Amino acid sequence: MNQQVYSIPKLNKEMGKQVNEYINTLTKPIGSLGKLEELVINLAEMKNEAFPSVNVPGVLVFAGDHGITAEGVSAYPQAVTEQMVLNFLNGGAAINVFSRQIGALLEIIDIGVATDIEHTSLVNKKIRYGTANFYQEDAMTFAEAEEAIEAGYSQGLEMIKRGVNCLILGEMGIGNTTASSAILAVLSNKEVHSLVGHGTGISSEQLLHKVKVINQAILHRKPNTHDPIDILAKVGGFEIAGMTGAMLAAAENRIPIFVDGFISTTAALLAKSIAINVVDYMIMTHQSVEPGHEIAISLLGKKPILDLGFRLGEGTGAAVAYPIIQSATLMLKEMATFSSAGISNKN
Amino acid sequence: MNQQVYSIPKLNKEMGKQVNEYINTLTKPIGSLGKLEELVINLAEMKNEAFPSVNVPGVLVFAGDHGITAEGVSAYPQAVTEQMVLNFLNGGAAINVFSRQIGALLEIIDIGVATDIEHTSLVNKKIRYGTANFYQEDAMTFAEAEEAIEAGYSQGLEMIKRGVNCLILGEMGIGNTTASSAILAVLSNKEVHSLVGHGTGISSEQLLHKVKVINQAILHRKPNTHDPIDILAKVGGFEIAGMTGAMLAAAENRIPIFVDGFISTTAALLAKSIAINVVDYMIMTHQSVEPGHEIAISLLGKKPILDLGFRLGEGTGAAVAYPIIQSATLMLKEMATFSSAGISNKN
Repeated sequence: MNQQVYSIPKLNKEMGKQVNEYINTLTKPIGSLGKLEELVINLAEMKNEAFPSVNVPGVLVFAGDHGITAEGVSAYPQAVTEQMVLNFLNGGAAINVFSRQIGALLEIIDIGVATDIEHTSLVNKKIRYGTANFYQEDAMTFAEAEEAIEAGYSQGLEMIKRGVNCLILGEMGIGNTTASSAILAVLSNKEVHSLVGHGTGISSEQLLHKVKVINQAILHRKPNTHDPIDILAKVGGFEIAGMTGAMLAAAENRIPIFVDGFISTTAALLAKSIAINVVDYMIMTHQSVEPGHEIAISLLGKKPILDLGFRLGEGTGAAVAYPIIQSATLMLKEMATFSSAGISNKN
Repeated sequence: MNQQVYSIPKLNKEMGKQVNEYINTLTKPIGSLGKLEELVINLAEMKNEAFPSVNVPGVLVFAGDHGITAEGVSAYPQAVTEQMVLNFLNGGAAINVFSRQIGALLEIIDIGVATDIEHTSLVNKKIRYGTANFYQEDAMTFAEAEEAIEAGYSQGLEMIKRGVNCLILGEMGIGNTTASSAILAVLSNKEVHSLVGHGTGISSEQLLHKVKVINQAILHRKPNTHDPIDILAKVGGFEIAGMTGAMLAAAENRIPIFVDGFISTTAALLAKSIAINVVDYMIMTHQSVEPGHEIAISLLGKKPILDLGFRLGEGTGAAVAYPIIQSATLMLKEMATFSSAGISNKN
């Protein structure tokens, strides 16, 4: 079992109550901005601030390779992980576009890509050259899983030191819907076929194969449901562990975590399994089309802001949802009150 | 019947096809950005541009009063219309906050407020000091309805001349959910009680009264289902007519219309009834909690981007949804292609 103890502060519910009361004095009918009101109350509780701000978003994209791709579970060859990392570094991927749009600090971390990538902007936290093929052996050692979480944790802290006041975790790793589906199957105790989707675009035949591979792997690896590190070690991935670690760092520092898609949500569930209070600091940004995502979201006990049919990852859904969360904070900060504007209240 | 003929260009479906093909070369799995892909294809068809842009949003907020408030159908006194107009002009309302957030040009138009408002930033297009109480007499004359549409049309044109490349229509008018429900009942032929909600916050008892008032008014006014101007004249409102006119101006100029909540969607349905092709230029931004909104949206043949439990109006839902539409245009413009980034395509 993981020995690390995370000290995650309690939400300040009293602050949320005060903010709720203040919202009811703003020049609009009570409750008429629905989800925005909920969001900013929640942010106030997290940040322990009467006027919480999310104006400096940080995006951490962890990249890692997966030995399981040898089993033919993915639509793209493993080389695409490295190629996409270069695309991130050159600013051409979707997460680059949306990070620029929202003014986010973006960092790309090699936590386990199968090849060496040389680039001045790349953060090198490589644990190993990709996971082992968990159809045949454990994806990584227990120590490596802990090391990957620790790497993510320290990257999270570093980003927070740079001044970000909210965090988006993204990932890149060909094969990582397979690893995430395996993790979720263990955590949820659901049938694998109900969780697995077409990922980045496999055929229905490949999908059946993917389900078979995951079922066999779980049977042989026997991950311990109650030990998130053991699950990561046996069927996980380095980028998933990295996201988990960064989420724990965010929660310890009252930094809201904007959870993205299926892989990100799986990492969130692992974080929850490590320190249950981490979920207090999570906002679920969107519902993806990957079938397991809905189950993962409900295990997290959250409701998504958006449902736009995304299935990309990289943190893109969270980045696209970000302006809505920002709208919530601006509503609170900038709207006039009935009394300040001299407006008659309800009859 | 309305004699004005609007010349609305056809969508360029060929352009949409080309954009769709180009999207499939971007560095992401095909279709993985779901609704964003749909949105930008649609914008390309509207604008007849390979890389459509929405970077200069315009927001027109039309304000007008409603004689029907004398029947006790609203949670707020009529004076709130004027007070909220002043709040808009002083920058303290929700639409001000969100307009600033998205960098929109915002204009407030008095098209029928019951009092005189003096303010250098207010556009005075007052048709009359509020509508008549349509429980007892027609809300306005046929000529006034035409005049109000024309005023909205010319304000739309003026905003377009200022350089905006997309348009949000908002409104303020205590009592206007009652007028909108009446209009929708006539256009949809649905039972009034299935359309009417709590508006800005009336009680269940007041709601029953509101339904009764609307039913009686329709019975006595007998609006002609097939004549949108007659409907507006009999049970409409000046701000609703203004929005309708501005939408027609936008469509004539290939300017996408980001449709907001219940009142805005009712205005959109009237515009559709005047010139059916206007709907080609509409994007439905959100689903509000007002019961009639879902019916109005389906009559328009659209699907909303967001469902955040809003019921505010002013154009706020459209403004909050705007960054998502912007994300769609940036995805197209800024993402690398598989070949430009040197990335392997699917196996």
